[in-house]
Formats: sequence, structure tokens, C-alpha cells
Amino acid sequence: MCHVLPGMALKFRVEKALMGDDGIARARAAVMILPGHAGKEHEVLTPTFMPVGTQGTVKAVATKELREMHAQVILGNTYHLYLRPGHERIERLGGLHKFMNWQGPILTDSGGFQVFSLAGLNKIDDEGVTFRSHIDGSKHRFTPELSMEIQRALGSDIVMAFDECPPYPATEEQVLSAMRRTVAWAHRGLATELGPHQNRFGIVQGGLYPHLRERSAREITELPFDGFAIGGLSIGESPDLMQKMATHTAPFLPEDKPRYLMGVGRPEDLVECVKAGIDLFDCVMPTRNARNGTLFTSFGKVNIKNAQFQDDAGPLDPECPCEACIEYSRAYLRHLYVAGEALSARLNSIHNLTYYQTIMAQMRRAILENRFDEWRESFYTRRQGTKT
Amino acid sequence: MCHVLPGMALKFRVEKALMGDDGIARARAAVMILPGHAGKEHEVLTPTFMPVGTQGTVKAVATKELREMHAQVILGNTYHLYLRPGHERIERLGGLHKFMNWQGPILTDSGGFQVFSLAGLNKIDDEGVTFRSHIDGSKHRFTPELSMEIQRALGSDIVMAFDECPPYPATEEQVLSAMRRTVAWAHRGLATELGPHQNRFGIVQGGLYPHLRERSAREITELPFDGFAIGGLSIGESPDLMQKMATHTAPFLPEDKPRYLMGVGRPEDLVECVKAGIDLFDCVMPTRNARNGTLFTSFGKVNIKNAQFQDDAGPLDPECPCEACIEYSRAYLRHLYVAGEALSARLNSIHNLTYYQTIMAQMRRAILENRFDEWRESFYTRRQGTKT
Repeated sequence: MCHVLPGMALKFRVEKALMGDDGIARARAAVMILPGHAGKEHEVLTPTFMPVGTQGTVKAVATKELREMHAQVILGNTYHLYLRPGHERIERLGGLHKFMNWQGPILTDSGGFQVFSLAGLNKIDDEGVTFRSHIDGSKHRFTPELSMEIQRALGSDIVMAFDECPPYPATEEQVLSAMRRTVAWAHRGLATELGPHQNRFGIVQGGLYPHLRERSAREITELPFDGFAIGGLSIGESPDLMQKMATHTAPFLPEDKPRYLMGVGRPEDLVECVKAGIDLFDCVMPTRNARNGTLFTSFGKVNIKNAQFQDDAGPLDPECPCEACIEYSRAYLRHLYVAGEALSARLNSIHNLTYYQTIMAQMRRAILENRFDEWRESFYTRRQGTKT
Repeated sequence: MCHVLPGMALKFRVEKALMGDDGIARARAAVMILPGHAGKEHEVLTPTFMPVGTQGTVKAVATKELREMHAQVILGNTYHLYLRPGHERIERLGGLHKFMNWQGPILTDSGGFQVFSLAGLNKIDDEGVTFRSHIDGSKHRFTPELSMEIQRALGSDIVMAFDECPPYPATEEQVLSAMRRTVAWAHRGLATELGPHQNRFGIVQGGLYPHLRERSAREITELPFDGFAIGGLSIGESPDLMQKMATHTAPFLPEDKPRYLMGVGRPEDLVECVKAGIDLFDCVMPTRNARNGTLFTSFGKVNIKNAQFQDDAGPLDPECPCEACIEYSRAYLRHLYVAGEALSARLNSIHNLTYYQTIMAQMRRAILENRFDEWRESFYTRRQGTKT
């Protein structure tokens, strides 16, 4: 039934895959080549972390800083951009790349997750979802077709299928129902035209039921997507359970296509899920934590508001090359946070995102050099010898 | 009575002074050479505008951006830094230059103005001022000696005398009383030791009474200060009156020392007061207005939140070299403002400060090239032909 319009499919080349303890090919270093919105190919080295640019900006961070920290792919949120400033406006202004002056690849989500989690009073049926804007309460309706239309207008390089993400916890029946809709909606999305440079990722659901994860993966990977995501995790379950479910699901995804774990996570989650064979990640954690003064460093988490830092002339993380660590002291970062200065959120966000880019690049190199397990051991050892 | 400890005085060389319509030497381009806290001289080209770094940071702007926009001198607020993080802490951490990683010159105010305008319930007597912190209501007392001690600990290059700024409006009697204290406090401040690289500026008061301005100028300029400021303006009176009073006062200040007009102002105020013979300015207006979405451009003021900009793909000011104008469109800047994104305050602040630096540099060049009047005409003509 599904009619895929011809585009320029991404290319995905696994450079090295390591065998897991379970005898399955797991952690891998790969190159994803996207055709590019401006006729210029983008090479994305994976595994990689994609900073979240919710409203057309990674909060408190400028586009040139994303380039400086070597972020490769940026996320855009369909729900937010549809409401404000509007996808048609962004299209008239030349697309999201031009709007935010980011010439690298952009992945847009489908809007589904925000509709379920953020919007007021949503009502879901087989055709789509009716919801109220979290900004002004106005009524809107998303369908798989409209989600594709919005993402087409935004002009992102990777377009996510419109799926139903069941809540946590959910009964087997609820999860099955969401899976049915997710497959039906995947077909409808695939039948909707996109720009020739745009690639489509399908989303695996299945809640926390291993057999449903397997079934959803088999259903979705039968469809002609260019990559596959694991959705419906990191929505309230324990990190251990999340890691187990991602590890369980990854091998059901094709080895020759990119694998994206949505909304994950903490640095240790990235490490465990790279180990499981995931290539792409996104999460608001580095930027949200930054604004709360929680900073990730090579020696563990730092709460910069603590009084212990008020006379600390040393850099936040002596190994970090970011502006916050090169230019300022812990005492200064603590002062900015306590004084409520705007520069605090910004320096903290740049630092946390740089840390994420750093560990992803380290993991990639470790995989290529066949020493991922040693790297992982040392990652935990340096964080006070314990896996937190 | 006053005992000045030997330091390395600043050098001030007027390169060119233009004769005003009144036959008095007025607008001038000069070089101020400060000995430097780190044993390295700073050359400051005047006239110049000094961005205000209230709490050890120019709000929403990073130190490297101040360097990029060619800001020459930064202001630090004694009142704010005394309360948080504390001047003794900053001294232990190596001084304010090191704390905020700004190696250029810093001017610190005396704390007096904030104590009168910002702190709760202040009580003034001949010895000093008792006040309550605006942060936690705790009780504190500033004296001329303590103000010097705080500024010594901060290590600024230019230290302002602790003065009494009468409110607006004020009776002649109130202004005379404040002038008496200002002179007595000036003597006490001069008797307090500073670091060898630190220079002292005296402050002229006199309210809006021309004869008191003259008298205050004569009293203060008799004292061995390294430069002189006009205080007590831009506190509620009309811009016209402020400009008149600054124009009236400037000729009573020595021609061979820097003249600083405190807390001024709008771009047109800078133009008129450069014309009057002022060398140094500071004001929170460019950064505060930026946070409210009011932007200064070569063609006048822009309120970026206006709906007219929502589809405007052009740059904010095509003549401006700042990050906001080079990297983004008016539509994007409008979106960031409306969406409440942190990047908005930052880009807007960078833009407004860059605009201020630009017009100051243009005025300096125009003075040197003996075409200041033409430049001033064109400044107003380009803003729709009217002086606003």
C-alpha cells in the first residue's frame, strides 16, 4: 500500500563493529552520509549526540558555539516550531537551516511526543491527535500527514515518523494499541511526499515488554525507512530498565542502517547504549541540567551552586576545552549561578554539551581502536570507581 | 590636609580638540594611558563607552565578546560585588580582572549611587551611609574609606570617589549639603591607600543648578585627582536638561585630564555630550534595552517584538558587524524574543553594545578628521532627519 517517493537516500557505512559478550555485533563506529538540503553532502561520524534545539535554538547557546563544539546534527521540535513561529513562516524564510543559521544536518521529531507530554488535554483516535497549545490553549490537530507536511516545510535532513508513545507505566493492551497505530501511521507518513534531500526514520515502540519490542521492531523494520529509532524509553522507568530495553531491542534493527535512541540520556546511559549498538542520541539533559547548575565532568557530576566552590580558583574540568573551562574559574561559575546571571546558563550549557561531544568522540575512537571496554572501565573508574 | 600616596598616574594626551560654537574647546579625541594592574600599560582611545559589568559580568555577554566588540574599559559595581561574592573573596581569587577574565582596564564606581538608589532604607550622616542589602535585607555601612578599601581589593584601574548624589528634584539646600559631604569625603578617600596602578577620579555634583555645578567643579578640581566625573545627572531630569548641564559643566574640568559623564545615556546623548567635551561614558541602557527588545541601529530604534518583523529575512542593521546582524535575520531575532529564549537577550545585548562602540569610534575618527559636525548631522539625518 505504501508509496515511497524517490529521494536521495542516506548512506550508512559501518567502519567497525565490536562483538558483545552475547556474541552479537554491538558497539559500532560508522559514517552516515546525508544528501544535504543545499546540495552538499553531510558526513556524520557516529556514535554521536545531537543537541536539542527546541524552539529553533539550543537553549542559551549560539549557532557558532554549536559549530565550535563540533556538534554534528541538531534536533528541531516539530510541535514547538509549528506553534511558534509556524512551519509555513519558516518555510517562507528559507527553511529551518537558514532560520537558525545552522548549515549542518537537522533531525526533526514528529511532534507526537510533545503532543502527548506537553500539550493540554489531548485526544487520540485512529486518524490523529487533537490537542491544546501549551502557549495559549488554542485547539490543534496533528495527523501523520500533517506531521510530515510540517517537517517537509522545516526542511530537516532526517524526518521522524509520527508515532504513538504509550505512557509509563502502560498495560500490554495499551502498548499493543499504540503499536497498531504506530504501524498504520508509519504507512501513512511514508505515503506523504517530502523534499528530495529528506530521509525518514521509523520508530519502534513496545513499552517495557521485551516481546512487544521485538514485534514492533519486526513490523517497523519491514517498512522502507532510511533509519530506525527506539522510542518510548526514558519516560519515567529506571535507567537500568531503559538500558536493558535498548540493549534488548537494538539487535532487531538492521545492522546497515542508523539506530537512534530517542531522549537518552545521562552520560552513563550513552556509554551503556553505545555498548548496545546505538548510533544516535538526543536529550535535553545536558542543557536542562546546565540551567540548574548540574555540570558533567570527567570526574563526575558537579553541583556548581555548592559553597565548596566559592573560593575555588581552578577550572571546572581541567580536561575540557570549552569556553567555561578555559576562560573562567569554578568560583566565577558559582558566582554567576548564585547571582542569577544569564551568562551562567550559557557557560554551563556550552560546558555540558562539550562534555557530551567529548565522550562521544572518545567512544568512537575507542571502538575504532578496539579498546571500547577499557575506555568504558576507565570512564567509570574516573567517576570515583563506581557505576552510578 | 590630604595625603596622596604615590602611584603611577595615568597619562592623558589630547590629540585633537574642536572649538565649539561658544569659542570653548569642546569635542576632543584623546589617548588615556593607564599603568595597568599586571605591569602592562593600557592605551584607551577616547571618546569611548564603557559597558557596565554590574555583578562581575556584563549581563548576557561573555568576556570574549567584549574583546570582539573592541570594548576598551569595563565598569564594575562596588555595591554589588561587595555584597556578592564579596570584595575580599575577589581579592583572594586574584582581583576582579582575573575573576571575570578581563585583562583590559576596569573602572569601579564607589557604591554610593547604588546605596542611594537600590538598597533599602538608607541613612546618611557625615561619616557615611548605613543601608540594607537589596538581596537579603542585612545591614551594612559604607564610608569613604571602606569604598576605597573595596575598590582597592577589586583592583580596578580607575577608582571613583565616594560621593553623595542628591535626588532629583532637590532643593538648593539639599544640593549644597551633598556638595559639602562630597568634598569632605573626597579628602578622606584621597587619604586612603590604593594599589600603585590605581588612579582616582573625583566627582562633580551640583544638581541642576548651574552655579552649584561650577562651584562643585572648582572645589573638586582643586584636589589631586587623576580625572574628573560629572555625577548626579541622568537620574530623572529631561535629556535636554541633562545635556545642558553636562555642556555647562564640562569647561570647568581641566583640559588635560579625562572627563567622565556618569550613567549617560541614549545614543543621541552620547553625541551631544561628546560635542560638549566628554571623554568617557557608561550606562546600562544598551544592555537593559536589549533585554526588553529595544535595539539601536544606524537608522534609529527598532522594537524587535513588533509583528512587522516576523517575516523579515533581512539583517537587523546591515551596517553592523555584530554576531546578531551577521548570523541571523530580524525574523529570527523576533522569534527568539517572543519565545523567551535566552539567546535573545544575548544577541540583542551584543548588538546594542556593538552599536555604541561603533558610534563612539566613528565620532573619534570624525573629530580627528575635523568633520564632527558633518558626522553629527548625518547621524540625525539617518535617524529619519529628526533629533529625537
